[in-house]
Amino acid sequence: MKPNDLPATPWVLARRAQRMNPSVIREILKVTERPGIISFAGGLPSPSTFPVDEFAAASAQVLAQDGPAALQYAASEGFAPLRERIAAGLPWPVDPDQVLITTGSQQGLDLVGKVLLDAGSRVLVETPTYLGALQAFAPMEPEVVGVASDDAGVLPDDLERQAAGARFLYLLPNFQNPTGRTMTEARRAQVSAAAARLGLPIVEDNPYGDLWFDQAPPRPLTARHPDGCIYLGSFSKVLAPGLRLGFLVAPPALYPKLLQAKQAADLHSPSFNQRMAHRVIAGDFLDRHVPRIRALYRSQRDAMLAALARDMAGLGVEWNAPDGGMFLWARLPRGMNALDLLPQAVERGVAFVPGAAFYAGAGDDPEALRTLRLSFVTATAAQIDTGIAALAQAVRAAQGRP
Amino acid sequence: MKPNDLPATPWVLARRAQRMNPSVIREILKVTERPGIISFAGGLPSPSTFPVDEFAAASAQVLAQDGPAALQYAASEGFAPLRERIAAGLPWPVDPDQVLITTGSQQGLDLVGKVLLDAGSRVLVETPTYLGALQAFAPMEPEVVGVASDDAGVLPDDLERQAAGARFLYLLPNFQNPTGRTMTEARRAQVSAAAARLGLPIVEDNPYGDLWFDQAPPRPLTARHPDGCIYLGSFSKVLAPGLRLGFLVAPPALYPKLLQAKQAADLHSPSFNQRMAHRVIAGDFLDRHVPRIRALYRSQRDAMLAALARDMAGLGVEWNAPDGGMFLWARLPRGMNALDLLPQAVERGVAFVPGAAFYAGAGDDPEALRTLRLSFVTATAAQIDTGIAALAQAVRAAQGRP
Repeated sequence: MKPNDLPATPWVLARRAQRMNPSVIREILKVTERPGIISFAGGLPSPSTFPVDEFAAASAQVLAQDGPAALQYAASEGFAPLRERIAAGLPWPVDPDQVLITTGSQQGLDLVGKVLLDAGSRVLVETPTYLGALQAFAPMEPEVVGVASDDAGVLPDDLERQAAGARFLYLLPNFQNPTGRTMTEARRAQVSAAAARLGLPIVEDNPYGDLWFDQAPPRPLTARHPDGCIYLGSFSKVLAPGLRLGFLVAPPALYPKLLQAKQAADLHSPSFNQRMAHRVIAGDFLDRHVPRIRALYRSQRDAMLAALARDMAGLGVEWNAPDGGMFLWARLPRGMNALDLLPQAVERGVAFVPGAAFYAGAGDDPEALRTLRLSFVTATAAQIDTGIAALAQAVRAAQGRP
Repeated sequence: MKPNDLPATPWVLARRAQRMNPSVIREILKVTERPGIISFAGGLPSPSTFPVDEFAAASAQVLAQDGPAALQYAASEGFAPLRERIAAGLPWPVDPDQVLITTGSQQGLDLVGKVLLDAGSRVLVETPTYLGALQAFAPMEPEVVGVASDDAGVLPDDLERQAAGARFLYLLPNFQNPTGRTMTEARRAQVSAAAARLGLPIVEDNPYGDLWFDQAPPRPLTARHPDGCIYLGSFSKVLAPGLRLGFLVAPPALYPKLLQAKQAADLHSPSFNQRMAHRVIAGDFLDRHVPRIRALYRSQRDAMLAALARDMAGLGVEWNAPDGGMFLWARLPRGMNALDLLPQAVERGVAFVPGAAFYAGAGDDPEALRTLRLSFVTATAAQIDTGIAALAQAVRAAQGRP
């Protein structure tokens, strides 16, 4: 029988999969992969910060000294010395047994969703919030609720109003993706106390915390109430994302469930990569390496701020000045729509992500439609100059100016 | 406020997580990690088959030539040249656009579950079946139904009886984990035709297909009806599991959903590992390497068969003689229980996995309780000799013999 003679198989999708649809933005941004486009869209760390030589040395050593173990199946928890190193580096007392190595911190979000969310469960997020977290939670079909937020993070009043029955509050307090904003010490204290009082667990995501420009951000919320929080970290921004290494720190009561979800998801994260990363960060490598990343990203942020001040003058565009991280958040004048602006910008050789993508279920709000996320870490300072000028031209054109 | 003054946070687990409990077997097998225990329990490939030198060379080349790209974020679909190579190596026409690189084939099972299973969805599996698949599907809370099976695979009659409303049939046709059995050509033709007629999708898992001893197994079921099947493959058994690289091949209609589930799960599999594996398998490396694995595992299977014949004589134990793969399946005499035997075996320095773990929801059936899985690839031939002798002593003791 030839395949063509067979009846078509009636695949039935899970309900969650029916809601997984390609995003319009993703489709538009595919063009930005073509050479010549200056992209402020992606969240790609500058490849100039990747410690290629150190990885080459570490890889050779791992294979020469521990080759068979590095290439074998390994414990789902992760490589013990790496877990110990992570625990020792966190600013509150963490037992290495509470550390679970994940395949990027994106996987941490997937595991958290699996262990804590039923269909219809309420999850609180910032307004706006990290798109990847919304995507990671989506398969569990939660009801995602945005808590009103200002430049200092979620507003405690609205948090109290929304908290009843929520499974957890998802926060990205440092140099947030997408806004670049940082939760102040005062707000952390308020939110942490409110969450404890409300019995509201917190999932704290901290991929950018080490990328501060002038001073380190305030202590993690998890440090204030470890038993009420799951903390997610990543090596993607301080080493390299291509290794896919992140971790989570969980209260002892939750750890076994997250571990079993991890085992079912991919057995374990690559043992070779874990051993390589462990060797690279041994000693004081990060103490020397991370300041270089900070200095570079700071100079690129400055280049973007200078270009915005120069090229956007008089156009009614507003933006913030992040203290670290990778992203800057801008607002078009009232009534303008960043989604409409995108194709015009791409035509002029520059790309960004319309901010509406980051609003949980409120992406058609006029305030959301005005916003855009600009990454200042992928393009060089010279490209930032050219790109912001092109973006300003697109805004001018959309405003009907010459 | 000190942490101790804070009220305990009332974490609420998802319903699925309440059902995730540490397995008794896993707990017992933890002892087997201690030195001196001969383990037939794990599914660990022999580390002597890992091409350490080739990985070292590939790693150095990848970092020297494509370091920044190998360490950067990458497409969720996977590294294009690796996808092309995989597509070209499969025994039916596959477009590289249908290939999705996964973080081990375990992740392929997680993605399939997410895209195809709702709570309560019916899934058909072999009796017994791969435990990792049951664990991967479990978070989606399906109703898993075992189809009656014999030494040639699932029985078409029972398949017809059970098929109504099933989302898919999960099969591991080559050198199955746990039984080592292979689905015959005749049975594949019957099952493939029945599935097409019934409109029943097939998820075909093939991690062991290359590890044949005398002749290659029959063609995959997917090759007979590609639009009705998702096919899962792995580099864990022909290269090394520590890289966590697998892949799936999906019909074009399903691919975008699986891709979105993949992106939400871990963004992409490590780009560095994909490029390294691609370099190692470039040219005819696998044509030279895999025959060496086959020869080794064949000699170890022979060692185990010889030891069983010698040491189990007269004890009423039965076993099969797999044509490939990593596992042999044995049955204790009627009335004996492999779970009871395990601690006695461990006491004598040898471990195995009681077969009951592999039966979907029927692990307390007396027939299931008799069975055990013996891996012949991790221990050396000499260790197999010693280990089977010790296992025979444990059986003798359990039977009250001297």
